[in-house]
Amino acid sequence: MDLVAIGTVGYDSVETPTGKAEKQLGGTAVYLCLAASYFCKVGMVAATGRDFLPGYLDLLQSKGVDLEGLQQLEGETFHWGAKYHQDLNVRDTLFTHLNVLLDFTADLPPAYREAPFFFLGNIDPALQLHVIEQAKNPVFIGMDTMNYWINSEKYRPNLMRVLQKVQGIFVNDEEARDLSGEYNLVKAAAEIHKMGPQHVIIKKGEHGAMLFSDDSIFFTPAFPLELVDDPTGAGDSFAGGFMGYLTTQKRLDNAVMRQAMVYGSALASYTVEGYSVNRIVELNQQLVDERFQAFYNLMDFKK
Amino acid sequence: MDLVAIGTVGYDSVETPTGKAEKQLGGTAVYLCLAASYFCKVGMVAATGRDFLPGYLDLLQSKGVDLEGLQQLEGETFHWGAKYHQDLNVRDTLFTHLNVLLDFTADLPPAYREAPFFFLGNIDPALQLHVIEQAKNPVFIGMDTMNYWINSEKYRPNLMRVLQKVQGIFVNDEEARDLSGEYNLVKAAAEIHKMGPQHVIIKKGEHGAMLFSDDSIFFTPAFPLELVDDPTGAGDSFAGGFMGYLTTQKRLDNAVMRQAMVYGSALASYTVEGYSVNRIVELNQQLVDERFQAFYNLMDFKK
Repeated sequence: MDLVAIGTVGYDSVETPTGKAEKQLGGTAVYLCLAASYFCKVGMVAATGRDFLPGYLDLLQSKGVDLEGLQQLEGETFHWGAKYHQDLNVRDTLFTHLNVLLDFTADLPPAYREAPFFFLGNIDPALQLHVIEQAKNPVFIGMDTMNYWINSEKYRPNLMRVLQKVQGIFVNDEEARDLSGEYNLVKAAAEIHKMGPQHVIIKKGEHGAMLFSDDSIFFTPAFPLELVDDPTGAGDSFAGGFMGYLTTQKRLDNAVMRQAMVYGSALASYTVEGYSVNRIVELNQQLVDERFQAFYNLMDFKK
Repeated sequence: MDLVAIGTVGYDSVETPTGKAEKQLGGTAVYLCLAASYFCKVGMVAATGRDFLPGYLDLLQSKGVDLEGLQQLEGETFHWGAKYHQDLNVRDTLFTHLNVLLDFTADLPPAYREAPFFFLGNIDPALQLHVIEQAKNPVFIGMDTMNYWINSEKYRPNLMRVLQKVQGIFVNDEEARDLSGEYNLVKAAAEIHKMGPQHVIIKKGEHGAMLFSDDSIFFTPAFPLELVDDPTGAGDSFAGGFMGYLTTQKRLDNAVMRQAMVYGSALASYTVEGYSVNRIVELNQQLVDERFQAFYNLMDFKK
């Protein structure tokens, strides 16, 4: 196993300016694994309920995602609903039914514990910590989190422990501000560096993403698209593409980190072209490389 | 004269999250000319009132800006006031005292009419049209505009005439949406292309700028700064740097347009580091090139 991704698997019901998708496949671990599947062998650590459609399991397996770490628990599958504004960077969460996630333990199958790369999707920091403790010899651990954990007196101490043990953190601009107490993102990244991660990736949705590493800053725009159907999963596809690409590299130097940012952006840009996972499941290596090249054309200048 | 810039000269009173600047030098033509002054001989076409401080004229001349086209009219100088939010992309205009601008005619001195490059700052489209009619042999005309002209039944017909005669338009995202009737910026740029300009530059403030030319899209981020004192003039500094760089080039091909975008972004990034023109007046060629190189480091990736 090259990469192990921990997160949610469930149903998403979203309404966007272009349409609606009811109770479709979603969840952070799903987008993470599908994006990473174009680069490496990825194993999913998550939980579903008894009502989870077997067809979705087949779909994930057909993309090469390893499901040994996917637990089926008693009860209903996680279900999340949201409505996006015309400004797709803004959405209202309509409901979050945690369901079986309340019983999720994030235990890793033995084979997963040997993996070199881990990504800790946005879940309870205690579970993220539990995963780290099971990893035998991790090379690079990436993590996501959210304001719910950041701003809670109960969860924040564990979150700070997780931060000390990861190499990369992926947060959006608002989360970076909450975590650091700094509004300016350059200052925010500097504060978050002090909390542990060597690489701070700040995702800004349609405004792109920034990588803060040591003294180097790298910027990738979001790919300019004529039509965005559904932004759900863009951030996780970004992280999955980023981590997946890292697993293919011998040295994790700054040049590789920058390439990973672009592969992450490429995967995210595909995800938003369709509802749910419709677009990201139909990619192949050539399409991924074509979008990477398109980013090059978008950002290239010489003198 | 390499470049002629038409716009406003006046006093700005701004309040930003970091402080206040009362009745300082401002106006679109001022930022345009100061930014362009690092590249070429630029002439200013604008109007001041009798109350305009001679020291400001000296300052502009000390930077090599030609003031033959600057008219001194009876009455008070243009004065604009605004307050910025913590999100510096949002500001409330507190007042706009047009004063002598109501009598501004945009007549060009004879020497200016021979210039190859023109930039039409955000003024009444009838005046922009009047400038175009005086230009004897223009190579590249750039323009700015704003929602006030775009959304007015009275001004829009002239604005559309101007659009047919320029090579480049510089607008912010909101203006691009209003002008085109399209929310998506890729679609908006395509619609604006049809109105005339071959190059559509959409400025997104702290989220960067995009160049849409034929089938090529180029993106530049805003430079990540730890401190932004005053965003006023960023857009005009961008246009001034862009146009100034063009005047130094023999061929205006896509590679040059991309370099111009980066020089524009470099000048804009310096302007916002200080209140009013405080930072942009103290630059030199080396600092401009250093920031250009810093943009390269920010955006460069290879594979």
